[in-house]
Amino acid sequence: MDSILPLLEKTKIASRALAKLSNGKRSALVVEIADALEKNSDKIIAANARDAARMDPDDPKYDRLLLDKSRISAIESDARNVSKIEDPAGKILLEKKLENGISLKKIAVPLGVVGVIYESRPNVTADVATLCLKSGNAAVLRGGSDAADSNLAIVEIIQEVLKNSGVSPDAVQLMPTDRKFVKDLLEAEKFVDIIIPRGSANLIKFVRENSKIPTIETGAGVCHTFVEKTADLDAAAKIVVNAKTQRPSVCNSLDTILVSAEVAAEFLPKVLPGFLPFDVEIFADERAFEIFKKSGWKNLKKSEPADFGREFLGQACSVKIVDSLDEALDHISEFSSRHSEAICSKNQELIDRFLNEVDAASVFANTSTRFADGGMYGLGAEIGISTQKLHARGPFALEKLVTEKWVLRGDGQVRE
Amino acid sequence: MDSILPLLEKTKIASRALAKLSNGKRSALVVEIADALEKNSDKIIAANARDAARMDPDDPKYDRLLLDKSRISAIESDARNVSKIEDPAGKILLEKKLENGISLKKIAVPLGVVGVIYESRPNVTADVATLCLKSGNAAVLRGGSDAADSNLAIVEIIQEVLKNSGVSPDAVQLMPTDRKFVKDLLEAEKFVDIIIPRGSANLIKFVRENSKIPTIETGAGVCHTFVEKTADLDAAAKIVVNAKTQRPSVCNSLDTILVSAEVAAEFLPKVLPGFLPFDVEIFADERAFEIFKKSGWKNLKKSEPADFGREFLGQACSVKIVDSLDEALDHISEFSSRHSEAICSKNQELIDRFLNEVDAASVFANTSTRFADGGMYGLGAEIGISTQKLHARGPFALEKLVTEKWVLRGDGQVRE
Repeated sequence: MDSILPLLEKTKIASRALAKLSNGKRSALVVEIADALEKNSDKIIAANARDAARMDPDDPKYDRLLLDKSRISAIESDARNVSKIEDPAGKILLEKKLENGISLKKIAVPLGVVGVIYESRPNVTADVATLCLKSGNAAVLRGGSDAADSNLAIVEIIQEVLKNSGVSPDAVQLMPTDRKFVKDLLEAEKFVDIIIPRGSANLIKFVRENSKIPTIETGAGVCHTFVEKTADLDAAAKIVVNAKTQRPSVCNSLDTILVSAEVAAEFLPKVLPGFLPFDVEIFADERAFEIFKKSGWKNLKKSEPADFGREFLGQACSVKIVDSLDEALDHISEFSSRHSEAICSKNQELIDRFLNEVDAASVFANTSTRFADGGMYGLGAEIGISTQKLHARGPFALEKLVTEKWVLRGDGQVRE
Repeated sequence: MDSILPLLEKTKIASRALAKLSNGKRSALVVEIADALEKNSDKIIAANARDAARMDPDDPKYDRLLLDKSRISAIESDARNVSKIEDPAGKILLEKKLENGISLKKIAVPLGVVGVIYESRPNVTADVATLCLKSGNAAVLRGGSDAADSNLAIVEIIQEVLKNSGVSPDAVQLMPTDRKFVKDLLEAEKFVDIIIPRGSANLIKFVRENSKIPTIETGAGVCHTFVEKTADLDAAAKIVVNAKTQRPSVCNSLDTILVSAEVAAEFLPKVLPGFLPFDVEIFADERAFEIFKKSGWKNLKKSEPADFGREFLGQACSVKIVDSLDEALDHISEFSSRHSEAICSKNQELIDRFLNEVDAASVFANTSTRFADGGMYGLGAEIGISTQKLHARGPFALEKLVTEKWVLRGDGQVRE
């Protein structure tokens, strides 16, 4: 293949036909896709095994890549949930008669063609495709080469369903993984309406710096939990252990513990029993290092400056002792990726200051950043977690896969 | 000045303080600004005269530049309107208790620092500043050198009001017009949350290709009106004349007339009496050229391919005869800037197809594209007309100067 432009043009054409389908027809398509994924789960698992065989199991991405029956059934059930969520496309957002007699409506309409560039997780393939189809959008998927076989298997199953339903299979395209095509995609403003990078900070930076198409940044999560001195320290330890260890390869997992100096010596040892089964690697600042050393923690290093603002994506974290809420706020302001930030405290005034002043998509008091998730918020499957401020912030789910159109009907009015 | 980064950093700091002001305080500030603009109108007019003296009166931008008592009073009244519109910041968009007991709120919060890059029109300076202040945002304004004196006068008046109210005058910054600083601004993602270019297609293209900050494209309007064969031709002629001549220097004015072949010979001469006072220059395709020639129109040229998709911004337009709705739709799809597109017709089915299928921010049936305007839609003053699909589409007014924040309060919940 020399150019992906012909492929993208076909997707643009397919998007127009898709936008004309009824909401009911689009929901039915998604249900059929869920059925087909279930029926063909062995085919997906076989393809996934080929992908997995190419990867080092110690790679932090390995866990993200794997698909088994239970993960496929989660994907399938995500699709069924998507089919049931209210379709945002076609909704009348505003309707009024202007003084001059013109009727004005603001209507939610599909975006058109949604381009998603992502890395290992093959469930993204099915999530993005079903979310786009449900909301009347075509999708261009550029998955990572790690998951190439899994993604192809999933897209072939989806395209088969489209074909059997009389919908152009071009409505869901899987791009070749050749790197040279990514740049072509980012410049195809004529055919693609929005680009969503989902993955590492490097990927997101590359897309931001090279895309001529409006972009929603998602994915990179440098997340802090600040344990303030009035916190219930046992509850805070559970929250920190959960935020770090429960699924460390995802973006809402904890990267840095901040703790008030007054309670650091009491609090930090409390996380160790929870860290033990995972042998969490701790990068501690000078004061925290002494505390962990005294507790006998072996997998311990003195932190370097680069360990703050670092997304670990594995069983590792950095720890810093702070002397005030302001110091914690300043640290977060400097190093946060504006994804998910938490405080544990009993002081309502400080909690309110934290929740108001931290500039992030999701802010948490006395609970785990792992809850930052479209499903948890009741939005259904998500395309990613937006860390930017335009259009969608935080979980980017079905409700945001639309734009607006102003429709005015008059009978000859002109402007004075 | 070597670098604008220190100035932008001060604006970022000012934005944090601004976001903490109450809605009432922010509205009061805007009223005080309106008062101050009124009181100092002579100073603004004197500054504007210095700007005007530097420009050729035949430049299509000349009309955009000029300020007189009545335009200042329009600016002042825009500001008073802004003070009265409901402030979007602080609004609770969603509130619920999750099954696990966590309380979830989605709250509208200010964007932070809004950067606007614009060209001649000095009213933009006051509009942007008041819209931003009202919604808790700081503003970085980069106006064109054509309007440098007018912009400076307006910003000095605004900063004086801020200072007198105990608000940091850094909350509204006017950037030096040196071109080299524009690139610095577009890369200052640490201090600026959103960039809005407002002006020529070239400016917008430059911003899109160089900004590392999320951008809302506004301004370029290549607008068509399609006169379909069933249209009331007299009403359609009034609409076309209004869309072209009433204020040709703005983005929602007509650039191209499309007309059904069956009625072209009857329709096109009907626009000429309305075009006469402005001696509109017509770039006509072959068939339309013959019709206008027969009618004796002098200011007539055969169209070149570049005359379609061209934003004229003056008393000139191109004309093309089409043989079907589909030909009109294809032409619009190829050449539209997705700003404002109109049809004149009595055929409801064709009207519905046009309104549904044309991909533009605003679509009109039997009325003038000149109505594409935040004020006309009841939204108050606007920052621009967005021609992109993310966040804001069409008039970009106060309601869109916010982002969302998810706030979760728990009592120790962790994710299973």
